[in-house]
Amino acid sequence: MKIAVDAMGGDNAPAEIVRGAARAAMELDATILLVGREKDIKAELNDYYWDFSSDKIQIVNAAEVIENEDKPVHAVRTKKDSSMVRAVELVRDGEADAMLSAGNTGALMTASLLRLGRIEGIDRPAIVTSVPVIAEDGRFEIIVDAGANSECKPQNLMDFAYMGSVYYRSAYGKESPSVGLINIGVEETKGTPTLKETYQLLKMSSLNFVGNVEAREVPNGPADVLVCDGFVGNVVLKLSEGVTKTTMKAIKDAIYSSAMSKAGGLLIKGQMQKLKDKFNYETYGSAPILGVNGLVFKMHGSSSANAVYHAVHSAARVASGNVVEEIRNSIKDYQKQ
Amino acid sequence: MKIAVDAMGGDNAPAEIVRGAARAAMELDATILLVGREKDIKAELNDYYWDFSSDKIQIVNAAEVIENEDKPVHAVRTKKDSSMVRAVELVRDGEADAMLSAGNTGALMTASLLRLGRIEGIDRPAIVTSVPVIAEDGRFEIIVDAGANSECKPQNLMDFAYMGSVYYRSAYGKESPSVGLINIGVEETKGTPTLKETYQLLKMSSLNFVGNVEAREVPNGPADVLVCDGFVGNVVLKLSEGVTKTTMKAIKDAIYSSAMSKAGGLLIKGQMQKLKDKFNYETYGSAPILGVNGLVFKMHGSSSANAVYHAVHSAARVASGNVVEEIRNSIKDYQKQ
Repeated sequence: MKIAVDAMGGDNAPAEIVRGAARAAMELDATILLVGREKDIKAELNDYYWDFSSDKIQIVNAAEVIENEDKPVHAVRTKKDSSMVRAVELVRDGEADAMLSAGNTGALMTASLLRLGRIEGIDRPAIVTSVPVIAEDGRFEIIVDAGANSECKPQNLMDFAYMGSVYYRSAYGKESPSVGLINIGVEETKGTPTLKETYQLLKMSSLNFVGNVEAREVPNGPADVLVCDGFVGNVVLKLSEGVTKTTMKAIKDAIYSSAMSKAGGLLIKGQMQKLKDKFNYETYGSAPILGVNGLVFKMHGSSSANAVYHAVHSAARVASGNVVEEIRNSIKDYQKQ
Repeated sequence: MKIAVDAMGGDNAPAEIVRGAARAAMELDATILLVGREKDIKAELNDYYWDFSSDKIQIVNAAEVIENEDKPVHAVRTKKDSSMVRAVELVRDGEADAMLSAGNTGALMTASLLRLGRIEGIDRPAIVTSVPVIAEDGRFEIIVDAGANSECKPQNLMDFAYMGSVYYRSAYGKESPSVGLINIGVEETKGTPTLKETYQLLKMSSLNFVGNVEAREVPNGPADVLVCDGFVGNVVLKLSEGVTKTTMKAIKDAIYSSAMSKAGGLLIKGQMQKLKDKFNYETYGSAPILGVNGLVFKMHGSSSANAVYHAVHSAARVASGNVVEEIRNSIKDYQKQ
C-alpha cells in the first residue's frame, strides 16, 4: 500500500507532518510518499530519522505550496506543481491508495473535484468527521456533512447517508450502522420541508434509519452516522469542541480556587487525564472527502506530529478496504430504485 | 404590576407552577394571577400557603387545559376557556403586564399571534433564550431565534437582532449590547446567501454589530445577542445542554472509578456544586416571545417550583420596563431607513 502525504500543508508543516508520517511509516505495512519541497523534507527526515529505507518513505518533489489564504479554485488552477495537487494526482494515477493533507480545506475539496472527479450519481461530495461518543468509551459516531455544503437538498442528504454508512462500516467494522437525521424534534413532521422530505426518503431506504435525532443527544451517540447539512454539521462539531473545552477549563478553575479542592484535584488528576485523552481531537484520525473517485483525507490545520501519526494510521485502515468502489455501487443501487 | 401565570401548563402543573409562582409573589411588589381550574389551584395553595392576601395572589378560573399533544392552532381555536388562552387574553386586555406558561410551545406561540397580534413591521416573532456564558461568571448571552422559525430571510434575522438588542438592554441593563451572527466562519463572505446578506445589513445598521461568530466561541460569550434562525438556535441550545451534562457525568464517573480519586472527589465537592449551580437551567429565567403586542414568556416544560420562581422574577423585571413599546419604536425607526 502507498499513502501520499502533503508534507507542506498545515500550520506546522513541514516539521510536524514529516515527523508524524515517518513515525506511522515505521509501523505500517505501507510506503509513505512525502510530497513537497525535497530539500525541506529531507532536512526534517535527517534530523529525526537518519535511518529509513525507501520501502518505508519516499519523497515526491513538488516546488509550490498552497497557502491557507489562497483562493481555492485559483490556487488549484495556478499552482499545478503544489504539494497538495501533486499528492491528489498520485491518487488519480494509481500511484497512491490515499492522500492526506492538513492544508487549505477549500483547495483540497477543489483539487479532489477537479483531479479525481465526482463519483457518478453524486452531486455534492461531503466531508466526514468522526467524534467520540462521550457517554460510551471507545465508540465513535460520524457527522456527514461536516462543513462542505451549507445548503442541501433531500437528494444530497440521502447521498450523505449512503456514503456515511459505507464509510462507517469500513472505518469501524460495523455491518449495518445506524443512521440518524439531526433535527429539532424526533417526530417525522419536525423541521424544514427539506428535512421532512429526507425523513420520508430515509424511511423507505435500505439503510438502518433510526429517525430524527435531537442535538441534545449527540454526546450520547444516538446513531453511528449523523446526517445533516454542512452548516449544521459545522455548528455541531465546533460547539461540541467549544463546550467541552470551556467546561473542562471551568472545572480546572473551580478546583484551583481553594486549597482543599486543590488537594482534591491532585487525587483525581490521573482519572481526569484519562478523560482529557478521550476528548483529545488529535487521536480521532482524519476527515475523508467522500463522493470523489479516490481517497482524500483532510487533517486538522494545526495537526501535531501525533495527530498526523494517528491520521495516517486511520487512513491506512480505510485504504485497505474498498470504500470508493463500495460507495459507487451503493449509490448506483439506490438511485436505480 | 400584575403577572398572569398559566397554572395548568407544563409537566409538573399545577403543583410546581402554583408553588413557584406563590413563592415569587411573596417577594415581589406585584400581584400574581394564577389562571386555571380554581379548585385545583386552591387545593395547591391551601397545602402550602394558607395565609396569603389577594394583593399577592388571585385566581382566574379557566375550565380547559391545552395539552402537549394538542395541535397548536386547533387547540387555541377550540379551547377558548383554556388557562393558556385566558392568560394571554389578560395581557391583551391590559389586566396583566405579562404572562408565563410552561405549556405547549406551539400553542403559546399561536395564542400570542392570534390574541395579541404581531408588532407592525415584524413578519416573524421569535423566541429568545438566555444562556450563561460558561467562561465568565454572572454574564448571560441571549439567542434569537431559539426555535420558533426554522427558515429565515435576512429581514427576519434583522428583526431578531433589533428585538434582541432591546430585550437584552431591558433584561440585563446594558446600554448597547453587542450583536453577533452565528456562522461557520468569521469572514463576511462565509455561510449561506441569506447569512451573507444579513451580514451586510447588520454592518450598515445602528446596532453594535461585532461580526460573525463561530459556534466554538458560544460558551465564551462572543456577543450579548446571538442571531440565528430557529433551527440553528435549537441545535445550539440543546447541544450545549447535552454536552455540558454528559461532560459533567463523565467527570463524575471518572472520579468514582478509583478509591483515590473518590477521596479527591470529596475534597472538590463544594467547588463542583458551585459550578453545577451555574449550569443549572432552572435559574436562567424564561424565554420571551418577542414581536407580538404584549409580554409572553415560555417556561421550560419540566419546570420545577424553583424554575417557576426564577422565571416569574425575571419576567417581573422585564415587565417593569417598556420592552414592547421600545421594540415597536426600534423596528419603526430602522425600517424607515
